[in-house]
Amino acid sequence: MCNQSVMQKVNERVKAAGAPPTVSRRHFFKMGGALAAGAALLPRLTQAQSAQTVIDLSHTLSADFPVYPGAPQAGREVLFSHAEHGFYSQVWNFNEHSGTHIDFPAHFIADGMTVDRLPVEGLVGPAVVVDIAARAEEDADALLTVADLQAWESANGGIPEGAFVMMYSGWEERLGTPAFSGDETGLHFPGFSPEAAKWLVSERAINGIGVDTMSMDHGISATFDTHFVVLGAGLIGIENLANLKALRGHSATVVCGIPKYEAGSGGPARILALA
Amino acid sequence: MCNQSVMQKVNERVKAAGAPPTVSRRHFFKMGGALAAGAALLPRLTQAQSAQTVIDLSHTLSADFPVYPGAPQAGREVLFSHAEHGFYSQVWNFNEHSGTHIDFPAHFIADGMTVDRLPVEGLVGPAVVVDIAARAEEDADALLTVADLQAWESANGGIPEGAFVMMYSGWEERLGTPAFSGDETGLHFPGFSPEAAKWLVSERAINGIGVDTMSMDHGISATFDTHFVVLGAGLIGIENLANLKALRGHSATVVCGIPKYEAGSGGPARILALA
Repeated sequence: MCNQSVMQKVNERVKAAGAPPTVSRRHFFKMGGALAAGAALLPRLTQAQSAQTVIDLSHTLSADFPVYPGAPQAGREVLFSHAEHGFYSQVWNFNEHSGTHIDFPAHFIADGMTVDRLPVEGLVGPAVVVDIAARAEEDADALLTVADLQAWESANGGIPEGAFVMMYSGWEERLGTPAFSGDETGLHFPGFSPEAAKWLVSERAINGIGVDTMSMDHGISATFDTHFVVLGAGLIGIENLANLKALRGHSATVVCGIPKYEAGSGGPARILALA
Repeated sequence: MCNQSVMQKVNERVKAAGAPPTVSRRHFFKMGGALAAGAALLPRLTQAQSAQTVIDLSHTLSADFPVYPGAPQAGREVLFSHAEHGFYSQVWNFNEHSGTHIDFPAHFIADGMTVDRLPVEGLVGPAVVVDIAARAEEDADALLTVADLQAWESANGGIPEGAFVMMYSGWEERLGTPAFSGDETGLHFPGFSPEAAKWLVSERAINGIGVDTMSMDHGISATFDTHFVVLGAGLIGIENLANLKALRGHSATVVCGIPKYEAGSGGPARILALA
């Protein structure tokens, strides 16, 4: 999410039009005074009650994982080696928006929440997987719509409080090929429609959204409206998710394992589902 | 864990004496053939069944967090800023053994498991907190012993399969002062005794151990025997844990949120307890 020229124009435009309201996270105020330091109440964690399996929703963080145009690739180097030092360690360098990672409000919102300030209850919640793979197969610019969310609710019941609502587009099957990002005409991959994002942040009490593509907005977006809606509401967005196909149809709790990056706009994370 | 000269000598010594056996992780072979790709069976997750709260066992990853002598400090820089680019992002650079982080077998064992190859069930398991804070208050070189583990079992029942056995020494109260690392005579902080580590890896079926200090071995160790025992058994060790005081006495499931670092010897992680 780092195309500088486009982003600067977008931000100027959005500022001129009036930034989207920063909605208070309703969960943030549910923490009980009786809890120990460092602990936070979960809105609910019922999906974990019969947890038997762990599903890894994360890709390997590597130097060749595709990044958004304008952003640097991640890198790693051997710092200490068994042969030379008797033990082994690497040093990493990466932009916070590399690999399977989370966008935090501060990425797009000037006074937005950073990684180190988000109450931990915002990192855990029920999984909701919305499958648009059939449509995405036909249309690389496909959008997850309000109708898709309502169809999911008709089949599964209401989207639960604290949920992570994740788009399964089947896109990871293209990872390792140029089609993961797009084609010669530019970026092409599915994403959430801004209207779907608005519906989720205003009509439901979710913790965040997630996509199996490199951006919450579909690739052809020039204005990143879905980012502004989600991050502007104080919520988080997970990008480059893996294995959502395995998660479909299961009750699961998503745990967002993001290191507590100081002042982080987001960062690489281990996303696990306890199913 | 990066004192080069000491470590090289230790490794030569250990190699000459015969490296500790690499014990197969018994959990690794419990994965059912019927499971979807990316999913792994948990040995048990009973502690999550009544989960109501999330406890953050992680410190903020920052440039001034103390590191083991010989290792570089972590660093971060602003790459894109709201003022200049319309959005915000940092780049990070760090040694894998920075902040609240996990040691994987490859850190000390030449053919050991790296972060990207560990089955995900090894990242989730019941929390066991062994409190040696009173003894550590009197002795900065204190060791968690087999007797401490047996006393914990007498009071709480057997250490469960897949557990993360964590030493609470009260050491984080010294964070931000030189006493977190030691004094003018060298490194001084508590750790697991090698015998306690051997007892855990041979007599119990744990997933790993954890400490609220910067090393699994106590600070004055010159041979890192506890590291070799734990990592040599194919298990993992969490260092620089936070908030164990809040976790004491609770049933909880530990989730080790470590990004899937390619070829990683370990790395910064978000450690959460679902209590």
